[in-house]
Amino acid sequence: MNRKPKILILGAGYGGMMTASRLQKGNFHQDAEITLVNKHDYHYQTTWLHEPAAGTLHHDRTRMKITDIIDTHKVNFIKDSVVSIDKENKKVKLDKEELDYDYLVIGLGSQPETFGIPGVYDHAFSIRSVNSVRLIREHIEYMFASYNKQDEKDDSLLTFVVAGAGFTGIEFVGELSERIPELCEEYDIARENVSMYSIEAAPTALPGFDEELVEYAMNLLESRGVNFKINTPIKEVQDGKVLLDDGEVIDSQTIVWTTGVRGNSIVEEAGFEAMRGRVKVDANLRAPGHEDVFIIGDCALIINEEINRPYPPTAQIAIQQSYTCANNIKALVKGTEEELEEFQPDIKGTVASLGGKEAIGVVGDRKLYGTSASTVKKLIDNRYLYLLGGMPLVLKKGKLNLF
Amino acid sequence: MNRKPKILILGAGYGGMMTASRLQKGNFHQDAEITLVNKHDYHYQTTWLHEPAAGTLHHDRTRMKITDIIDTHKVNFIKDSVVSIDKENKKVKLDKEELDYDYLVIGLGSQPETFGIPGVYDHAFSIRSVNSVRLIREHIEYMFASYNKQDEKDDSLLTFVVAGAGFTGIEFVGELSERIPELCEEYDIARENVSMYSIEAAPTALPGFDEELVEYAMNLLESRGVNFKINTPIKEVQDGKVLLDDGEVIDSQTIVWTTGVRGNSIVEEAGFEAMRGRVKVDANLRAPGHEDVFIIGDCALIINEEINRPYPPTAQIAIQQSYTCANNIKALVKGTEEELEEFQPDIKGTVASLGGKEAIGVVGDRKLYGTSASTVKKLIDNRYLYLLGGMPLVLKKGKLNLF
Repeated sequence: MNRKPKILILGAGYGGMMTASRLQKGNFHQDAEITLVNKHDYHYQTTWLHEPAAGTLHHDRTRMKITDIIDTHKVNFIKDSVVSIDKENKKVKLDKEELDYDYLVIGLGSQPETFGIPGVYDHAFSIRSVNSVRLIREHIEYMFASYNKQDEKDDSLLTFVVAGAGFTGIEFVGELSERIPELCEEYDIARENVSMYSIEAAPTALPGFDEELVEYAMNLLESRGVNFKINTPIKEVQDGKVLLDDGEVIDSQTIVWTTGVRGNSIVEEAGFEAMRGRVKVDANLRAPGHEDVFIIGDCALIINEEINRPYPPTAQIAIQQSYTCANNIKALVKGTEEELEEFQPDIKGTVASLGGKEAIGVVGDRKLYGTSASTVKKLIDNRYLYLLGGMPLVLKKGKLNLF
Repeated sequence: MNRKPKILILGAGYGGMMTASRLQKGNFHQDAEITLVNKHDYHYQTTWLHEPAAGTLHHDRTRMKITDIIDTHKVNFIKDSVVSIDKENKKVKLDKEELDYDYLVIGLGSQPETFGIPGVYDHAFSIRSVNSVRLIREHIEYMFASYNKQDEKDDSLLTFVVAGAGFTGIEFVGELSERIPELCEEYDIARENVSMYSIEAAPTALPGFDEELVEYAMNLLESRGVNFKINTPIKEVQDGKVLLDDGEVIDSQTIVWTTGVRGNSIVEEAGFEAMRGRVKVDANLRAPGHEDVFIIGDCALIINEEINRPYPPTAQIAIQQSYTCANNIKALVKGTEEELEEFQPDIKGTVASLGGKEAIGVVGDRKLYGTSASTVKKLIDNRYLYLLGGMPLVLKKGKLNLF
């Protein structure tokens, strides 16, 4: 009796989840034993997390039970944390057990990039999981609830610092600026007592975005009370304060760190050659020298040949990779290696939401502002749900208030 | 020209608010200048505060704008804090100004009684104002939100200690026990990870209440997971822990102090003879030796001659006092001192809510349990609104889900 080859997928983010979803189609479980491992029993939309972090969307809207999407007759699901990967012996150590594999898909996602700035891990929040954004939401409310209980009012309770004016930082501060007036109402606090800062080391907010759109976003957010400090590196984060390179100190009890991500340290620890936790994969999305290991999503490094720089890790690329990855695994299992596909990203555009009905974006050659950009953003969010779980999932979790 | 006598009411709790409301009736402002001073621009229902503290009722349901109730053409309203009372010179110092009076009504309410137990002010919450209960609600949520973010789970985050199993303590732990399952659902926490303690120094919960009803309440609350520690004095409160006299230490990040109240220290500092901040007033509700100073509500001490012990300070007594107080002020201003009334409490009953549709109570000679007690409790709450603002206020803020 032939043993069925074991396919092990680590991580149920965009890449891992979509790979599992692609593999379960066409009854591939008859040819291989497919296992998906994830820390939580739910999958969540990482790109939506700025909304529950600010409290403008409930976190349950951003997540779904994995076994509601994956057919467990076709794909085994194990809820456990990955501890380490032993690529020589083809084993993966989890918290509670050890698994072996014939083909491995690493989709373990990213970790916050601190650039070695002291105090970030100890004193700043990050937008990276349901647990972490729920804490940010409640922390912000707790600051508002505490303010009026103090005899000597401490304005650092109502000072909110977002470190990094990249994509996530701008999207979060956009939501926050929409949420602040509601919080002021709820906690009997005058709007002028609240401060918001968006701090960016680079010479511009949203580096790489169209200049005109960046200006639109900054004007809009400034009109909602956001103070921008661009070209201003952060020197250190301490308990209750942010120290800037230019000598300024901002007293704040709420510092949200969004200066970008790196790959997962488990990938580095496994001995793959990596840059900041990201492995430069081959054209088939495999780790160099390891034909049985696919790496996708935020742990995969792919060079944009046109500008000779890596593509930024996005949900869009992770989803596209999952198609190539699933097809290539099928080819390897079936022994039709001539059918291995090369991955080619197809960047359709980028839209950043700014809270409320505002957004900016580039789709193809078109620049979008305001409501039309916001609508496109929601369509993108819904499209992913459609790819993952069809129309029922769109109806259940989608953003149906399009305008 | 005759100067109109000045009537100054300090505090817009049950007593002060109802006195102002009584005085504005019958156009008494033509005879006297009436001023009401309060720290906030709203009046709130102190006896409902255990609900917003647990998060089972929004705090806006427990409060109303003072100028929505008081007609400012008849009664001046000043939003300010009372600093001190100079009874010899008939002046009251506020934060921002000084006022003089001909007749003073002190309705400044209570302060938590700590019995000198160390650490209470620094490490425990109390249920005494909109600001304080909003903080408790958010603190509880923050504990739940923090739990899953920790690598080493700290169960003290999910341990809730209510110090004092008197009226407020039992009502609060009742609401909390109703709220916990919702919080477990919201924050992905198993119910068995949460602990609740009700700790009481006296030999029984709800001292003074009918024994059979106390047993009913304790059985019900135990079935919802409350651990009772009766006859167990608290020795000290420290950051994150409660030390009991019997040597046990309970690790808890949330300690709510409800062991009773004392009168207001401003009354003591003004030189009135007081026991724990409460002044034993004369039959007309005046401070002994001060015919121009009325003291009502939690700062007034009235002896129940039948048992030779003070009546416990309640909303019921404060409201009854306001009628006597307002009538007596009118008599003094009109120079009809023979019409001065003597205050006689008329205790109609006591009902304690236990969360959900549960309550216990004694009304007249009847013991009440369960839904019928809960309905009576709501009728009592609505009756006060009716006395204060008539049917429109009942419809706006009342508890209309009677069964």
